[in-house]
Amino acid sequence: MNDLTPDETQDIPALMAGIGRRAKDAAAELAFAAPQAKRRALEAAAEAVEARAPEILEANARDMDFGRDKGLSDAMLDRLKLDETRIKGIVEGIRAVAAQDDPVGAVIAEWDRPNGLHIQRVRTPLGVVGVIYESRPNVTADAGALCLKSGNAVILRGGSESFHSSGVLVDCLRAGLRAADLPEDAIQLVPTRDRAAVRELLGMTEFVDVIVPRGGKGLVGLVQKEARVPVFAHLEGICHIYIDAAADAQMALEVVVNAKTRRTGICGAAECLLIHRDVVDTIGQGVIRALIDAGVEVRGDAELQKIAGVVPAGEDDWGREYLDMIIAARVVDDIDDAIAHIRHYGSSHTESILTEDDAAAARFFQRLDSAILMRNASTQFADGGEFGMGAEIGIATGKMHARGPVGAEQLTSFKYLVTGQGTTRP
Amino acid sequence: MNDLTPDETQDIPALMAGIGRRAKDAAAELAFAAPQAKRRALEAAAEAVEARAPEILEANARDMDFGRDKGLSDAMLDRLKLDETRIKGIVEGIRAVAAQDDPVGAVIAEWDRPNGLHIQRVRTPLGVVGVIYESRPNVTADAGALCLKSGNAVILRGGSESFHSSGVLVDCLRAGLRAADLPEDAIQLVPTRDRAAVRELLGMTEFVDVIVPRGGKGLVGLVQKEARVPVFAHLEGICHIYIDAAADAQMALEVVVNAKTRRTGICGAAECLLIHRDVVDTIGQGVIRALIDAGVEVRGDAELQKIAGVVPAGEDDWGREYLDMIIAARVVDDIDDAIAHIRHYGSSHTESILTEDDAAAARFFQRLDSAILMRNASTQFADGGEFGMGAEIGIATGKMHARGPVGAEQLTSFKYLVTGQGTTRP
Repeated sequence: MNDLTPDETQDIPALMAGIGRRAKDAAAELAFAAPQAKRRALEAAAEAVEARAPEILEANARDMDFGRDKGLSDAMLDRLKLDETRIKGIVEGIRAVAAQDDPVGAVIAEWDRPNGLHIQRVRTPLGVVGVIYESRPNVTADAGALCLKSGNAVILRGGSESFHSSGVLVDCLRAGLRAADLPEDAIQLVPTRDRAAVRELLGMTEFVDVIVPRGGKGLVGLVQKEARVPVFAHLEGICHIYIDAAADAQMALEVVVNAKTRRTGICGAAECLLIHRDVVDTIGQGVIRALIDAGVEVRGDAELQKIAGVVPAGEDDWGREYLDMIIAARVVDDIDDAIAHIRHYGSSHTESILTEDDAAAARFFQRLDSAILMRNASTQFADGGEFGMGAEIGIATGKMHARGPVGAEQLTSFKYLVTGQGTTRP
Repeated sequence: MNDLTPDETQDIPALMAGIGRRAKDAAAELAFAAPQAKRRALEAAAEAVEARAPEILEANARDMDFGRDKGLSDAMLDRLKLDETRIKGIVEGIRAVAAQDDPVGAVIAEWDRPNGLHIQRVRTPLGVVGVIYESRPNVTADAGALCLKSGNAVILRGGSESFHSSGVLVDCLRAGLRAADLPEDAIQLVPTRDRAAVRELLGMTEFVDVIVPRGGKGLVGLVQKEARVPVFAHLEGICHIYIDAAADAQMALEVVVNAKTRRTGICGAAECLLIHRDVVDTIGQGVIRALIDAGVEVRGDAELQKIAGVVPAGEDDWGREYLDMIIAARVVDDIDDAIAHIRHYGSSHTESILTEDDAAAARFFQRLDSAILMRNASTQFADGGEFGMGAEIGIATGKMHARGPVGAEQLTSFKYLVTGQGTTRP
């Protein structure tokens, strides 16, 4: 396997420091690249992915072999797998990012002072972004494209199982940079499967401005614990959906079933259903029936266990992320009881209220502080693409800097530009 | 001195955990307080400071005695000292913050999606802010007022020398909260001079969302090194001022002298002068003459040493924060040489270019990434009040979240509010 893992024998700290240094140098140049140059680079990258699709599929086949040898689950293998359609999705994703407005240099705010000073707050790149992810090769393209658009250099550390697929995709992105005369090292893939590289990346405060981990709780928890640079992440998506007393019955049924079952493995999938006491026997019954009919295991509190097919919930079912066809469900006395439950058990990711009552919706929006709050909409919309950001590098639940789906705009910082006429301070 | 230090015998971890818990509870309530209530609290606080001025002066006199016993420098004693004028300044500062727009709940952006979803990004408070500062008692009022305005609870840890002055000021702020029926514990002063309280505060990740250190390099460096929560700070203000080839002679003279001499002890004071080679013998001569005449020690490179009165600069004069009547000065070959010098030696705080050439100014603004970049203006304007923010809790040079002068707006985060009509994701 020597040809596949060319750098396995390297000195990892030296390897990573070299990558970091090159990323920082590239970032300094990319920071003032013209918007047209970045767009051209992304378009050329998209063309390269299209043109090299057979090569990408061949590399992916090798990754799939490796994954099967490693005993990856079917779900993991499905995430790893690329086909014509998924490659088309990657190409479209890069083009969507290319077509967006360039965030760098945008004037966020400007004002004049009585003394004649003109003050502007303008967006600047963050610098160097480290992305640590698991099996999905499309993260390579999404993260690379978003970082380029936002003028940041990126160091990509994909899962060992997507090593070859990601390698060819990064080649395509770098070809795009070359085509636009931008520094190739703005996008680098860590060329080793050695896990020591991850630890090294997490501690490179000199070179890395922020780390974005994409993957399961194990990976994200490790990164949050060990990183010595800021982290944009969510540990879990324990999304709640609350059926208010003033919910519309048909809407509740459709939205809850969609929020739970459309895709159970994503962080925006609903994991807990709260039902207002007044509508348990009407809307609640119908929704729970529909969930069970759809194949969902409903783990209910004592009251809901009266409904046929509901299994008992244990204390550890509250605040649990199943990522499966299971939902926890309980009755609440009123909206404040629902809010209290979410505050206690939620993960600040996404919660939805189903109600026709504006005051109830306003209270839910005001008194909860999750990254995303919804009304009469499925939690499955918690996604940068669905928000219109073209793509996302991840979803953040922290309160510092980035929050919710992280697109190009939130990969920026800002600076103040102050213009006077020889203005001195008295 | 028992009456002055009532909690000196306490169990510090338990004391601080109690303060943290109460701050977090108060923050949860303050997060959705009505803008009018917060304004009323600030107005009542300003009135209380006015009414209790004699008591504040008396407390300050005790602090001054303590400071003199402790052997504080005259500069430190001057920062500590309150008089009628300074108290009036504090009252005006609180009223200025009260009069500002409330940042919480403000819609930063909103848009519609083709599927009918309406998305809003609205400002929310950060939560709990910890402020660690040295002698200046007015920080107590500024920080307290800004945190209240932005819906954050604050834990104030003032210097031991301002213990009594800060104590009465916090009493006034808490009286304001009571008057507006807001939770008093939204503003708390650490009631001990024990330094162990600082370390405790820096590690309270469960209760504290961000730490703002205000003070010298020693304090800020300690906080940056030890804090386990995010920090908004600047370690040093190594501000550069660059006289371009296309500078206006009279303007250069006035702005440079102001930038260096107006007040030498603030972080926005210029510490290094860069002069374009083409104007050394014209504008440069005049500016350096004026600096020397104003009493400034000019430490120049070999070329500038030809000017009478210039003393030789050593290698350690570049990138040095004097906070005194001293300035480092050197000749640069062109604007890129100036930019390279600033990138190498700067502290990302504030730099100013003096030029009539729009292209040169644009290059300076684009290729440097300090928190504040100025053109034809004195670096001494690097200040939240001068920016029109009413007050500032500090100046940040990091790129995460807050940057430049930190006012109420940057003490906020945001959340997304998404409204559908029973919208499900296909």
